[in-house]
Amino acid sequence: MRSVEQHLEVILNQIEPLEEFAIGLLESRGCVNAEDIVAPWPLPAFDTAAVDGYAVKVADVAGASAELPIVLKVEDVIAVGDRPAGAVLNGTAVRVSAGAPLPEETEAVIPLEFTDAGLSEVNIERAAVLSQYVRRRGEDIAEAELVLPAGQIMDPRAIGLLAAIGKSNVVARPRPRVVIVTIGAELLEPGAAVVPGKVVDSNGTMLAAAAAEAGASVYRIGPLAENLENVRTVIEDQLVRADLVITVGGTGAGSYEMIKQVCGELGKVDYTRVAMQPGMAQGFGKIGLDNTPIFTLPGNPVAAFISFEIFVKPVIAKMMGYNSYHAVTRKAVVENSFYSTLERKHYVRAVRVPGKQHVVRALDVQGTHLVASLARTDCLIVVPELVQEVRSGDTVEVIDLVDASVW
Amino acid sequence: MRSVEQHLEVILNQIEPLEEFAIGLLESRGCVNAEDIVAPWPLPAFDTAAVDGYAVKVADVAGASAELPIVLKVEDVIAVGDRPAGAVLNGTAVRVSAGAPLPEETEAVIPLEFTDAGLSEVNIERAAVLSQYVRRRGEDIAEAELVLPAGQIMDPRAIGLLAAIGKSNVVARPRPRVVIVTIGAELLEPGAAVVPGKVVDSNGTMLAAAAAEAGASVYRIGPLAENLENVRTVIEDQLVRADLVITVGGTGAGSYEMIKQVCGELGKVDYTRVAMQPGMAQGFGKIGLDNTPIFTLPGNPVAAFISFEIFVKPVIAKMMGYNSYHAVTRKAVVENSFYSTLERKHYVRAVRVPGKQHVVRALDVQGTHLVASLARTDCLIVVPELVQEVRSGDTVEVIDLVDASVW
Repeated sequence: MRSVEQHLEVILNQIEPLEEFAIGLLESRGCVNAEDIVAPWPLPAFDTAAVDGYAVKVADVAGASAELPIVLKVEDVIAVGDRPAGAVLNGTAVRVSAGAPLPEETEAVIPLEFTDAGLSEVNIERAAVLSQYVRRRGEDIAEAELVLPAGQIMDPRAIGLLAAIGKSNVVARPRPRVVIVTIGAELLEPGAAVVPGKVVDSNGTMLAAAAAEAGASVYRIGPLAENLENVRTVIEDQLVRADLVITVGGTGAGSYEMIKQVCGELGKVDYTRVAMQPGMAQGFGKIGLDNTPIFTLPGNPVAAFISFEIFVKPVIAKMMGYNSYHAVTRKAVVENSFYSTLERKHYVRAVRVPGKQHVVRALDVQGTHLVASLARTDCLIVVPELVQEVRSGDTVEVIDLVDASVW
Repeated sequence: MRSVEQHLEVILNQIEPLEEFAIGLLESRGCVNAEDIVAPWPLPAFDTAAVDGYAVKVADVAGASAELPIVLKVEDVIAVGDRPAGAVLNGTAVRVSAGAPLPEETEAVIPLEFTDAGLSEVNIERAAVLSQYVRRRGEDIAEAELVLPAGQIMDPRAIGLLAAIGKSNVVARPRPRVVIVTIGAELLEPGAAVVPGKVVDSNGTMLAAAAAEAGASVYRIGPLAENLENVRTVIEDQLVRADLVITVGGTGAGSYEMIKQVCGELGKVDYTRVAMQPGMAQGFGKIGLDNTPIFTLPGNPVAAFISFEIFVKPVIAKMMGYNSYHAVTRKAVVENSFYSTLERKHYVRAVRVPGKQHVVRALDVQGTHLVASLARTDCLIVVPELVQEVRSGDTVEVIDLVDASVW
């Protein structure tokens, strides 16, 4: 049997980040930029007035005060959005608005409140220091400066930065297109009329939501009946748009067998026993002409979900170009004692203990078909292979399923 | 001057959660469900075989062993997806597949490997305990059980749970439709040809990305020139689809004045000085026939972004029905000393110190026009109103802007 870590490594070694292309800035949110981005012009692009006032030379206003104002001729008026024009001549001032481009040779801006706001002539009532109320060209970003190295996640501030230097898109790795196919003779579409003996397909919807949450563009297909010909045709058809295929069965073992058969016809998938509980039966391989990666997940919802967390999420993250794609764990203290499966890494459903930030309580559930227990789960306690009993008060590693910052 | 907390309270008191409606399960991800959800049927909906094997009565296989198998007549075969049929009669067995509905009166399932897999008669080679390999009707969820109380965030597992009980949608609060309007004589659309004196509108794109990240459906409008008639018409037209309007100016003060004028004609907006740095000039009110809430954010990118974090995000969260909508802070240690503004809550841009999980370094930047500094920021140090100097080694509160779990 492979360990979880070995199995994940085998999988990740077969995955490459997706080919980058130009993505619109707003659509790029959460994607990873693939190129070093250099500013095509400085920011600010020109000396800018920080306040409404008058552009002057420092020597011309030396000694100015409310009692002894200095009178300067107003040579020009520059509003926000105007083209920068002319220069401040010695002994003159230019009226400027906050945000307006300053005339050349501006040494300082005198705020309006220290003047009489004159239009042809202005009384300046304060002296100035060099560059006061001047936003200098390039003080935020120099021309040709590297503003965003490759590998950065496009968050709202990075998006704003690229907009500011005139980009409308960014060369980034796209969201993986993940096709999720559920197969099972007993499966009904959610919302369909109930039929005795049938079961609603919850895996497809749950995994579609999980893949979207992980950053993928998701196509959900099925549930498909257990018809070999049809299942193969549907999966083959989906390969044109899939970067990753995930198949998942229903409650029966038959659907998993059928998926194995289809995968055997379409490519090469390895079925591996992984030392974990739940989720021991793992399938991963490549199918079709483009060698599209495929996961065949176990059909029980809890096993499917945990397999997704541990194996599929890292694959989506690696395809997106993230540097870090292993499940993040943190330490917590266990409130209740419980037994674990020896020689398996055990992912135990647990809840937060209200009011105790770092304490978790293992749920007393075993069955991997228990969707209600899964929905109730706040985090998974990861019990190592060689631990058979976890005792009240033990410190454990947990994987949070809900935002730990709002604990 | 109002404190940040007072101003936020004034705003939140004017905001109600949005009216709930039925949202498709996959679209509901991240939304808050608005109704207690009760299971219309139990889960499993019927007794289900956990393995391939034979449904039997316990007394009929008592004492069975490989040496002394007990022979039972096979009365029926039930596959996955079949309707549940008949009952297990005393002295007989029913062949069942894993996932198949069990016949009535089934007491246990004998796994296939402890039989000779016979079709008309079967040799049973093991005794059974009651309910072995039987997934009992209702053991996951009882009929009419409350499975998801109102107020839960729809995550992939909650979505899976509702699918399992046959729901195709959920009555939840929708994503607020946020219209972001940028106004400024100097503003160009990102990607447009550069013109001297003009500035690319980065605020609109940045805030659109931030609002989407906060959960909103975003419409970005503008940049609009400073034409009163046009700005008013555009904002009025947007009100039909807006749950919230955000206006933001450019680098100049003129656009903010124009927005004030338009808001005065369309409704009532209060302009408040808030004891914070940056972002002191805050406008909030209601406009139009539906009293649509509107923020008028300061035009400098850093002030706009921080205003969004502190005031707009909580409004979006409250509209979505979240219980908790204040910025989450955590403690960190500051590496470098710096001065702060007295009598203002100061949000200081800071970066993580590599390799030191709880140490942050304040960036040595002041200007609120510095978009590059903002993109570089990992977190905001929140310096209280009465603190004038923060010293190296001090413990401070920080608001993380990037995921703290991957620190």
